[in-house]
Amino acid sequence: MDELIYKIKNLNSPIVVGLDTRLCHIPNYIQNEVIKKYGNTQKAAAEAIVFFNKKILDEIKNVVPAIKLQLACYEAYGAQGIMALCETAKYAKENGFYVIFDGKRNDIQSSMQAYSDAYLGETELFKGKKEKVFCCDSLTVNGYLGTDSIKVVLKDCIKFNKTIFVLLKTSNPSSYEIQDEKNKEGKTIYQKMGQLCEQLAKETVGEFGYGKIGAVVGATHKKELKQLRENFLNTFFLVPGYGAQKATADDVSVAFKNGIGAIINSSRKVLTAWQKEGEKEENFAVAAKKEAEEMRREIVSKI
Amino acid sequence: MDELIYKIKNLNSPIVVGLDTRLCHIPNYIQNEVIKKYGNTQKAAAEAIVFFNKKILDEIKNVVPAIKLQLACYEAYGAQGIMALCETAKYAKENGFYVIFDGKRNDIQSSMQAYSDAYLGETELFKGKKEKVFCCDSLTVNGYLGTDSIKVVLKDCIKFNKTIFVLLKTSNPSSYEIQDEKNKEGKTIYQKMGQLCEQLAKETVGEFGYGKIGAVVGATHKKELKQLRENFLNTFFLVPGYGAQKATADDVSVAFKNGIGAIINSSRKVLTAWQKEGEKEENFAVAAKKEAEEMRREIVSKI
Repeated sequence: MDELIYKIKNLNSPIVVGLDTRLCHIPNYIQNEVIKKYGNTQKAAAEAIVFFNKKILDEIKNVVPAIKLQLACYEAYGAQGIMALCETAKYAKENGFYVIFDGKRNDIQSSMQAYSDAYLGETELFKGKKEKVFCCDSLTVNGYLGTDSIKVVLKDCIKFNKTIFVLLKTSNPSSYEIQDEKNKEGKTIYQKMGQLCEQLAKETVGEFGYGKIGAVVGATHKKELKQLRENFLNTFFLVPGYGAQKATADDVSVAFKNGIGAIINSSRKVLTAWQKEGEKEENFAVAAKKEAEEMRREIVSKI
Repeated sequence: MDELIYKIKNLNSPIVVGLDTRLCHIPNYIQNEVIKKYGNTQKAAAEAIVFFNKKILDEIKNVVPAIKLQLACYEAYGAQGIMALCETAKYAKENGFYVIFDGKRNDIQSSMQAYSDAYLGETELFKGKKEKVFCCDSLTVNGYLGTDSIKVVLKDCIKFNKTIFVLLKTSNPSSYEIQDEKNKEGKTIYQKMGQLCEQLAKETVGEFGYGKIGAVVGATHKKELKQLRENFLNTFFLVPGYGAQKATADDVSVAFKNGIGAIINSSRKVLTAWQKEGEKEENFAVAAKKEAEEMRREIVSKI
C-alpha cells in the first residue's frame, strides 16, 4: 500500500473521489454538445462521461491523490462504456492519481485469474504475447468465495505492484443480513473476513505497516469501523459512505491510526457540487474541487 | 424461471454450456486466420472467440437449451472483449438459447441498479431515452451485501422477464471459509443466504413452482446440494462443477426434484473436447456437441 500512502502524504489528503459518473451528473451544455456530435447514443454518453471526468481530474489533481471508478457506471454503456473507463483510467494515471477500480469482483480461481489479468496484470494474447489491458492500481474484491481466489489476485499484486480491497462491512442498509451473523466463537462474518485478509496482509507488509490487501468498511458503521481499525493493524481501509451516504468527518476519523491507515471516498457529493444553488454548470470542475478541498479540510482536522 | 424450464423440457436437456472461452481452447487454424487479419491484438483475440463460440452454438443448439458466459473471460480483452460478449449473446439469443451472464455482480443499491440496467433492463441515455445494452436473460449475483441490492435487480427481473442466480455454496476449495460458518441458530451462511433467496423466490413463483431468483450451488458439494434441494422448494439451482471440476452425473442428480429444479453447467470439458486424442481441430464444434450429448445422456439417466 506504500504507493498510495506516499501519494496521500504528499497532498496531506486521505481522500479518494469516486468517479461514479452518471448522465444526471453531467451539465446540460456537455450533453448538448455530444448529442450534436454523436446523436443520442451509447457513444455520446461515453464521450460525455470522459469529458466530464477529465475536466474534474484536471481540477482536483493537487487536492486528491486517488480516484475510484465504479465499474457498474461504465458497464451500463457496453463496450463504449468500457472505452470510457479505459480512457479515464489512463488519463488519471498520467496525471499522477492512484486508480482504484471498484468492481467487487470474485470467482473461482481460473476465472478470477482472468479478472486479475484484465485489471491488475496482463492478458495473454496468441503465442505467449502479453498485454496490459486496463491502467489501474487496485481492484475491490468480494470475498464470499474465500481466500483461494484472493490469493490468485494477490500473486499479481506482488508481481505488478498493485493492491486489492476486500469487502468487510459494507455501507448499505442490508449489510447486516450476512455480514453481522456471528459464528460459534462469537465473531461476525465481517470480522472473520477481516481476519482472513489481515493474515494475507501480514505477508506483504510495506514501509508503513500495511499489506497489499486492504479492506472496504463503510463509514456508516462507526462502531464497527473503530473496532476493525483496532483489531487489524496491517489492513489499510477504503471507506465509502462519506457525504451522500451521510457519514461525517467525525465518523470516519476512527478509521485512522497515527494519521494514516485509511482513505475516505466521496462520489456523488463531489460530482454534483455544481448543482448547488449559486453555482454555474460551466464551473462544475471547480465546484468539485471546492467540495474536495472542503472534505479534505474536514477530515484532516479530525485525524 | 418458466422460460428456462420450457427450453429445458423441449430438449429434455437440463444442461448449460459455459462459453468461458480462453485462447487456449481455440484451434490453431482459427488463431492463424485472425492473426493474419488483425495482427496479434486484443481485436484478433475477440474475433477468434466470437468465431469459435458461434460455431459451437450452431452445433449444440438442438442439444443444449442454455449457455453461460463467464464475464471475466471477456473483460480480459477490454472493450474488444465486451464486443465479443455482446455479439455472442446476441447470436445465442437469435438461436433460441437462454443466455446467462456469469458476472457474480453486486454492489450498493445505486450501483447495482446500473448493473441491472446494463445486463437485465435498459440503460438511460440522454433526455429519458432508454436502450437495451446487452442481450441476456439472467445474471449471477454475489449476495454478500444482503438483499437490498438483490431486490433492486429483482424488480427488473419482473419488469423485463429475466432471472438471477445468487451464490450459495460455491464449487471452489476455499468456499467453506465464509460459507460454512454457522450462526447462532446452527445455520450455515450458505443456508442463511438460501433462506433469504427462497423468501424472495416465493414472491415470484411461476408455473413450475420456481421463482425468478435462483441459486448457484456447486456440484462438488453433494451433501449440501441435496439438503438445499430439500429445504428450498421454490429456488431453481444453477449447478457448476460437473466435468472439469470432477463432479459426476450421480453427484448432480440430487439437485433435481421430479426431474426439474436445476440446470447443470459444463464449460471446459465441452470447449476442449476437440483436444482429445483422435479428434481433428477443424471438428471442434462437432466434438463439443458429442460431449454435450454425452453429458445430457448421463444426467438425464440419473434424474
